[in-house]
Amino acid sequence: MTQADRVTQTLARYLVNARADSLPQAVRDHAVRTFVNWMGCAVGASRHEAVEIAMAALAPFGGPAQATVLGRTEKVDVLSAALFNGISSHVFDFDDTHLKTVIHPAGPVASAILALAEHRPVSGKEFILALTLGIETECRIGNAVYPNHYDIGWHITGTAGVFGAAAAAGKLLGLDEQQMIWALGLAATQPVGLREMFGTMTKSFHPGRAAQNGLVSALLAARGYTSSQQGIEAKRGWANVTSTHRNYAEITDGLGERHESLLNSYKPFACGIVIHPAIDGCIQLRNEHGLKADAIASVQLKVHPLVLELTGKRTPQTGLDGKFSVYHSAAVAIIDGRAGEHQYSDAAVHDAATVRLRDKVTAEIDPAMPADAVHITVTLTNGERLEKHVEHAIGSIDRPMSNAELAAKFTDLVEPILGGAHAAKLLEAGWQMESLDNIATLAELARPVEKTS
Amino acid sequence: MTQADRVTQTLARYLVNARADSLPQAVRDHAVRTFVNWMGCAVGASRHEAVEIAMAALAPFGGPAQATVLGRTEKVDVLSAALFNGISSHVFDFDDTHLKTVIHPAGPVASAILALAEHRPVSGKEFILALTLGIETECRIGNAVYPNHYDIGWHITGTAGVFGAAAAAGKLLGLDEQQMIWALGLAATQPVGLREMFGTMTKSFHPGRAAQNGLVSALLAARGYTSSQQGIEAKRGWANVTSTHRNYAEITDGLGERHESLLNSYKPFACGIVIHPAIDGCIQLRNEHGLKADAIASVQLKVHPLVLELTGKRTPQTGLDGKFSVYHSAAVAIIDGRAGEHQYSDAAVHDAATVRLRDKVTAEIDPAMPADAVHITVTLTNGERLEKHVEHAIGSIDRPMSNAELAAKFTDLVEPILGGAHAAKLLEAGWQMESLDNIATLAELARPVEKTS
Repeated sequence: MTQADRVTQTLARYLVNARADSLPQAVRDHAVRTFVNWMGCAVGASRHEAVEIAMAALAPFGGPAQATVLGRTEKVDVLSAALFNGISSHVFDFDDTHLKTVIHPAGPVASAILALAEHRPVSGKEFILALTLGIETECRIGNAVYPNHYDIGWHITGTAGVFGAAAAAGKLLGLDEQQMIWALGLAATQPVGLREMFGTMTKSFHPGRAAQNGLVSALLAARGYTSSQQGIEAKRGWANVTSTHRNYAEITDGLGERHESLLNSYKPFACGIVIHPAIDGCIQLRNEHGLKADAIASVQLKVHPLVLELTGKRTPQTGLDGKFSVYHSAAVAIIDGRAGEHQYSDAAVHDAATVRLRDKVTAEIDPAMPADAVHITVTLTNGERLEKHVEHAIGSIDRPMSNAELAAKFTDLVEPILGGAHAAKLLEAGWQMESLDNIATLAELARPVEKTS
Repeated sequence: MTQADRVTQTLARYLVNARADSLPQAVRDHAVRTFVNWMGCAVGASRHEAVEIAMAALAPFGGPAQATVLGRTEKVDVLSAALFNGISSHVFDFDDTHLKTVIHPAGPVASAILALAEHRPVSGKEFILALTLGIETECRIGNAVYPNHYDIGWHITGTAGVFGAAAAAGKLLGLDEQQMIWALGLAATQPVGLREMFGTMTKSFHPGRAAQNGLVSALLAARGYTSSQQGIEAKRGWANVTSTHRNYAEITDGLGERHESLLNSYKPFACGIVIHPAIDGCIQLRNEHGLKADAIASVQLKVHPLVLELTGKRTPQTGLDGKFSVYHSAAVAIIDGRAGEHQYSDAAVHDAATVRLRDKVTAEIDPAMPADAVHITVTLTNGERLEKHVEHAIGSIDRPMSNAELAAKFTDLVEPILGGAHAAKLLEAGWQMESLDNIATLAELARPVEKTS
């Protein structure tokens, strides 16, 4: 066997032998940021229609009340919780992004292992290890086939994510090397997600089902359900079947030394990442100059070409439409100084002041503009011109959100569901997760307090 | 929109409008044969290690006791039953085959809808309609991408099967056209199965998980969980992403007129179909001449090239190995006059008389030999030569198994699990399934009688 024949085995061996003590501080800190951001997204979207429908549809078949659907009072079985939390954490498109592969890493992994950890107690420290290993697994496998796999049409968050969920759940279950190989094989045979589903509820089904598939893979492997020894790299294994290109060194090189999880990033705004520079710049101009909408004659944006291709909707009709409108996004950024879920409601896109300002926004493609940059010129009714050049948008690798900014985002998402005091308590516990004896504490804290009747 | 843009919609509309009354008698008869054969396989393998492991691994998370695992006393939730019955019905590799695509059609479809029908009562007549539509759906979608999709490495039983399960379950749930389109979209995004898994327990996981995925797709769609309008044919839909070739006319042409389910076939022997001609011929020689093993000097086979490529194991060490040995298979056919599960036990491949005869069997490739044919020359110790040319093996489209032969196969599989009288009762009810008011009767009959303590 050559190195290229031992991809799955090499990865499995690393996963089985990895120890919490050997994780660098920066990696552990990043895992906490990832998890806090993921909890915020999941709680925030917990009343979304997609979650309501999925829960209602599958409720008649569900098992014991073992695990929490974050932000909700109902408890469901572990496998169902993995699905529902995976859906809710992605449905706002507000979760974390591994920019190199556009994988949203936490959805499949955190959804699988938090549910499992409510059934089999695990410390914060061990949980952070499993989360980190899961993210490492899916991002490295994603790296090995990106961009070809994505270009073909696979939604890589689901198709690579299933490996992350299997690896992380397998770690918590204490799989040995052979079992971990089988778990990865069972994951390989269950990729979830076509990009064709974007724009429908099925997009957020992908991380949820990937979480569930990975968890089932690990559970079966733990009992001795056999699978391929080379699920990833075999001639008819996952990578050859789902991609036209493969670079296995991305999976096997520098395991334990190079950490893909450090490249995870967080969205400050509840919309596609391509319009984040414009929003960032508009908020900066607003705050620096005390901008008022009715003092503005025009807003001119010079943008990366993808901005108009993906988010060129001139007159959005729904909140979701608004996420695909750089014009609406610039307007709310100036008026509200933010672009959270609230700015993308159906009401927000029809707000009279917003519409008036939106109609004054123009955007022009500058082929030389980097994807995380923008140039903005605001002309006031008094003739004054204000300029802002954003080199790296907030939330990009070069200008990550601070913990304070993540906290503000979390609060914005969680307060409407749990209330202010409760949200603050969950956030505080989240930051301290590494010291928790039992990570299930967080799941319990993410439940609304049930009214006693 | 052109016709090629309306593949999913055209199929969905047909499925929604199809009526039991319009199914030709031959199609209904075939559905009964398919279902009886499927039940026999599922009951027969119900104690297999793969089933035991899967049930044990997932038991802690299961829901209410709603549906039967055929051949077992335990009841499990509907979704779990779909998985477990899908595994058991395929684990012997003894289930039905749509020869044009090598899809095993019943596994994904019957497993999904029998479980559902135990939860939502349905008549035999309506059940046969749903079963037929599910088989039609998966085989037509398979036709559209075969052989390229299979050559790439997809296990088409799982990847096309998920559509069959969604269509059939959707029919029983009474989905309207939009919901059926969504169900097919949700199915499209959850293909299960890499061929790399062949030879491991994960192969039989594929029809089980496809059944479950299709069922979940239909349940979600019924509640309004949105998905693509063009899950099959979109640029980044299932067919483009998973195949290098597509012929959508195979899906949309002659719906309700041309019936792929009529091309379903049943295996008389519990091994790969390529060695069926040799087994068939050996059994015929045995029965015609009263052949005794110790009177035989040599058995010479002239076979299709694939026979030695796929089943050339000279000295099998396990029962499973035996399924990949044309030599062992010819030997048991002459000695026992059959090649059921019993002839592929670990003990059977080490039986002294079998080994002695096996060592006298030789096989030679004849490039002109068709896949369903064989030429056999038996030389006796007294110098006499016996010849047998099989033009179409029993079980092929040109020489289908009779109902009596299917009944014998069923009995062989089911008797060891349920006992003779009980097996006969289930078989009788199976042949009469069209007249049942509630198809769940069959599931109940497929449970062993629990001992009262």
